[in-house]
Amino acid sequence: MNPQPFADLLSTVRTRRPLVHHITNTVTINDCANVTLCIGAAPVMAEAIEEVGEMVAIADALVLNIGTLSRQQIASMLKAGQRANECNIPIILDPVGAGATRMRTEAALMLLDRLEIAVLKGNAGEIGALAGTGGKVRGVDSEGAGGDALTIARSYAKDADTIVVISGATDIVTDGNRVLLTDNGHEMMGRLSGTGCMAASLAGAFAAVSRDYVISSAAALAAFGLAGEIAAVRAGGPYSFRTELFDGLASLVPEDLVRGARVRSV
Amino acid sequence: MNPQPFADLLSTVRTRRPLVHHITNTVTINDCANVTLCIGAAPVMAEAIEEVGEMVAIADALVLNIGTLSRQQIASMLKAGQRANECNIPIILDPVGAGATRMRTEAALMLLDRLEIAVLKGNAGEIGALAGTGGKVRGVDSEGAGGDALTIARSYAKDADTIVVISGATDIVTDGNRVLLTDNGHEMMGRLSGTGCMAASLAGAFAAVSRDYVISSAAALAAFGLAGEIAAVRAGGPYSFRTELFDGLASLVPEDLVRGARVRSV
Amino acid sequence: MNPQPFADLLSTVRTRRPLVHHITNTVTINDCANVTLCIGAAPVMAEAIEEVGEMVAIADALVLNIGTLSRQQIASMLKAGQRANECNIPIILDPVGAGATRMRTEAALMLLDRLEIAVLKGNAGEIGALAGTGGKVRGVDSEGAGGDALTIARSYAKDADTIVVISGATDIVTDGNRVLLTDNGHEMMGRLSGTGCMAASLAGAFAAVSRDYVISSAAALAAFGLAGEIAAVRAGGPYSFRTELFDGLASLVPEDLVRGARVRSV
Repeated sequence: MNPQPFADLLSTVRTRRPLVHHITNTVTINDCANVTLCIGAAPVMAEAIEEVGEMVAIADALVLNIGTLSRQQIASMLKAGQRANECNIPIILDPVGAGATRMRTEAALMLLDRLEIAVLKGNAGEIGALAGTGGKVRGVDSEGAGGDALTIARSYAKDADTIVVISGATDIVTDGNRVLLTDNGHEMMGRLSGTGCMAASLAGAFAAVSRDYVISSAAALAAFGLAGEIAAVRAGGPYSFRTELFDGLASLVPEDLVRGARVRSV
Repeated sequence: MNPQPFADLLSTVRTRRPLVHHITNTVTINDCANVTLCIGAAPVMAEAIEEVGEMVAIADALVLNIGTLSRQQIASMLKAGQRANECNIPIILDPVGAGATRMRTEAALMLLDRLEIAVLKGNAGEIGALAGTGGKVRGVDSEGAGGDALTIARSYAKDADTIVVISGATDIVTDGNRVLLTDNGHEMMGRLSGTGCMAASLAGAFAAVSRDYVISSAAALAAFGLAGEIAAVRAGGPYSFRTELFDGLASLVPEDLVRGARVRSV
Repeated sequence: MNPQPFADLLSTVRTRRPLVHHITNTVTINDCANVTLCIGAAPVMAEAIEEVGEMVAIADALVLNIGTLSRQQIASMLKAGQRANECNIPIILDPVGAGATRMRTEAALMLLDRLEIAVLKGNAGEIGALAGTGGKVRGVDSEGAGGDALTIARSYAKDADTIVVISGATDIVTDGNRVLLTDNGHEMMGRLSGTGCMAASLAGAFAAVSRDYVISSAAALAAFGLAGEIAAVRAGGPYSFRTELFDGLASLVPEDLVRGARVRSV
């Protein structure tokens, strides 16, 4: 498809500067804050159950990431999510490590059951674990969805009534009917901690200014992947790649997406 | 004013290497540790209520930052603060997001009420929210103090019996009578997560070697802003700016402050 | 000694990509994740008591770091450690700040008592505090072991039935009988937050593919120090040093260790 809508969304993020409320892990929380700033949105991190309802009500998107989950976080995620649903604020769920432990799998399934999740973004193993297709996860790394990822994504999007995003060399975005595949990215992104989390933050920033979450999710992944491609050219290793990736996102202009986004509708 | 006292304080920080105890947020905790090291002080982070009293008693300053506040943290901040007051160790309070949620506003006001705070450092919205002048905060970003920032800072410094610092393009430092304005800095600092938190850490390092917290706070802000100016020249984006900012602080020498600090007494 | 075994271990880490489960502090948790990735292993961070037993059972090493200790973390460390022992998964204990507060000293001693710790890695002050020789710690910085570090390390390794590693300009690795000294490293490593934590993560990655923890620990420290030496040549300050250090670890090849590791058996 023509990536002009992606470019338009990037312009809108830059103009509106949406507030993206995160309840996320302690490993990549700083990366998530900075990636949100670099794309042109505003991050806020808050997870005390006493304040999440109030904070999310002034936000434009909510990102829930279970990368270092605790019992208190689960309660805060549920409360923030319920308030987000009441306020029609889109929720992005990143089920980091679902499939690796029962706690993570069950927490993600509970959130999918109790909340209206706009976008569920995981790797193939995580989505396969939630879909019950035999997805395998080692720590936080996918070892496969347990079947054809596209088929599983489509089917689970319908079952769970959400947009499913499976990140990978080719990213899959589907609502169960429409499917967009984005091919941007670079293998360097897998050698840096937190790129999956960052992708979820960007999906939040783009969802905040859209109501078509298939388009907004694909736009976020294409923008991120494109910045990764540019960064890889300049980087001498994973950590200089990180610097270039963030700088690249900050300097990305809508025209770059028109020229460089590689997206297919299937 | 002549910035020679700022240069002298930087020399003293480098010589004494004061220990700065932080109870802070999980987003920028690493930045706070590294900025403290770069300026020449020693950071320690500890927040378990079982140990904060013991840790702060060997420290030279205490930084309390409510950026990802929890109920347990509030209790630890109060306990550490009381011990700091007993030991005459200066406390820097950074009321991140005060005004955005009741929990943050009330926690900051409680700490201001129960503790002797040496320096209260926030953005205009946060200070205005605490002063009750109608300060507005969106997430962690200021949307204005609700009136003239300098007037509010002076008045609230008297009311709360503390040094008030309002960070911005021009930073305001006042004890209610004396006012110092520092003009160092670069707009790039607003595009990076955590620069406000880092400024509070530096204010802690400088307060640790001074008893004039108007001078020490202005010195910290001038040093930070000056490093930001130098960094902006070299940076290609927010993340390379971060690298240059930390390296710039580490290589800053007292003579740089004599030449480059822009401070006015009003 | 000939460093060929170090080179072989690095090759094995790269081939097997062991999973290193961390329960660690919030200051340097991202550094630990990225350093683990850079050396060629896979990090996972999980600390909820509900899931640590399950997570560690699929891991190849467990790193326990008490840098921002909480009561809940102590319980999770004990539970994860017991499961690790049942599964014969090596545990690396980094007693950050032991000696600075009773809570840290007592938690480290309890873990040493209740668990079979493969490697205890600290600075001289921390090890001296645990050994009861009068080690002194200011925040997280060593102020000396209270006696000759090598003597204390040897004696305490026997007493505690573990490998003791004391990091410093010369690193000491001993099981009480054998002693290896590694001389790689650069003073820049002391000006960056978290290098001690990163060393423990690397010790975990190397222990995961070895059963001789004297060799694996010395290999980890030599690799880290060598990357530091290379990084220092290119760095303009502590933060560009960080970038070069991570990139240097990622690009380190076994042959570099054969040529550059400086290790002595005494």
